[in-house]
Amino acid sequence: MWLQRDVTLRAHPRGFHLVTDEVVSGVPELDDVEVGLAHLFIRHTSAALTLNENASPDVRRDFAAWFDRAVPDGAPFFEHTLEGPDDMPAHIKASLLGSSLSLPVRDGRLALGTWQGVYLCELRDRGGERTVTVTVQGQSRSDP
Amino acid sequence: MWLQRDVTLRAHPRGFHLVTDEVVSGVPELDDVEVGLAHLFIRHTSAALTLNENASPDVRRDFAAWFDRAVPDGAPFFEHTLEGPDDMPAHIKASLLGSSLSLPVRDGRLALGTWQGVYLCELRDRGGERTVTVTVQGQSRSDP
Amino acid sequence: MWLQRDVTLRAHPRGFHLVTDEVVSGVPELDDVEVGLAHLFIRHTSAALTLNENASPDVRRDFAAWFDRAVPDGAPFFEHTLEGPDDMPAHIKASLLGSSLSLPVRDGRLALGTWQGVYLCELRDRGGERTVTVTVQGQSRSDP
Repeated sequence: MWLQRDVTLRAHPRGFHLVTDEVVSGVPELDDVEVGLAHLFIRHTSAALTLNENASPDVRRDFAAWFDRAVPDGAPFFEHTLEGPDDMPAHIKASLLGSSLSLPVRDGRLALGTWQGVYLCELRDRGGERTVTVTVQGQSRSDP
Repeated sequence: MWLQRDVTLRAHPRGFHLVTDEVVSGVPELDDVEVGLAHLFIRHTSAALTLNENASPDVRRDFAAWFDRAVPDGAPFFEHTLEGPDDMPAHIKASLLGSSLSLPVRDGRLALGTWQGVYLCELRDRGGERTVTVTVQGQSRSDP
Repeated sequence: MWLQRDVTLRAHPRGFHLVTDEVVSGVPELDDVEVGLAHLFIRHTSAALTLNENASPDVRRDFAAWFDRAVPDGAPFFEHTLEGPDDMPAHIKASLLGSSLSLPVRDGRLALGTWQGVYLCELRDRGGERTVTVTVQGQSRSDP
């Protein structure tokens, strides 16, 4: 089976946000996958997806603290400044973090580790809604 | 359907280069995929693939500026210096950026966002030609 | 064909380790795949998988040297310190490096470049055993 659908994530403030449930609720057909893969793909170049610790909000704040220091807004060597001081850092962070996740699916659920969750990395000050294309493939539980 | 083919990218100078068309033209069978995924895999450890902004050349120059500062050539703590001052930084940048991309395919085309393009990240001073293994899987438009 | 299995990697010390053989030996059914993809997924948020140079041990030491400088243990701006000074840096490094690899399979083997190998990135001081979920899909060599 193949399924491909765009899931819209509501606007989030700049930072790192746990969105596992928001994404999964957009593809209820996951229930029917016995074994497979789910591919999450964000259709933007100033936001990213990553997998990390799903429990402590301070982990997500520390992500922002580190990335904002590693790729500072308005660094003097950036030439691409037309779209604001947060734009070029957003592009670089997006490539460091990645635009997609491939996740194993088993018995109708994402087969994540106990502490793993999907982060939306909103890298712009005002990113707005973000679209994630979810592609699910695998063996259906209802196959003979 | 499954398709797997090596696509040779011509030699590019050190830097970040938009190669979406160069890759896609190597797999014309994409036309026939109704829904699926395309996996691009670079068979090298000193070059990488990433997805980012496809419009402004200054974005790609700023990528080089940031990465060259973050992982400087000839950093004094590197032990692996036998292959030149640009070699070890190339390896580290390759792992930061990643060696593969999985991209959704829909109606015979890569289903990228409006501003997304595939970057070849040439991380060596003289990297030469690079080979990308493209694997396409999906449902064919000609299936009954 | 679809195959999904958890492969346990023995405990490794903090650092970067070549584990291609350890992973591949856990999925002998790869032999039967004519063309396909292997997805390796680490079920942890303080360890990662990446692909890099498979020959020189000093490359792997330089990886540790760079990452430990880029994301230092006990950086003063981290709030999430309850699990030790190596915990928060491990989370950030895990997202920089990535939790999964998708690798082309051809004629029963991983179709890697000559110099490519799978690194286990053990980012904690004492990470213990790590579980990698391997998902293999493709066309079987025994299909008619």
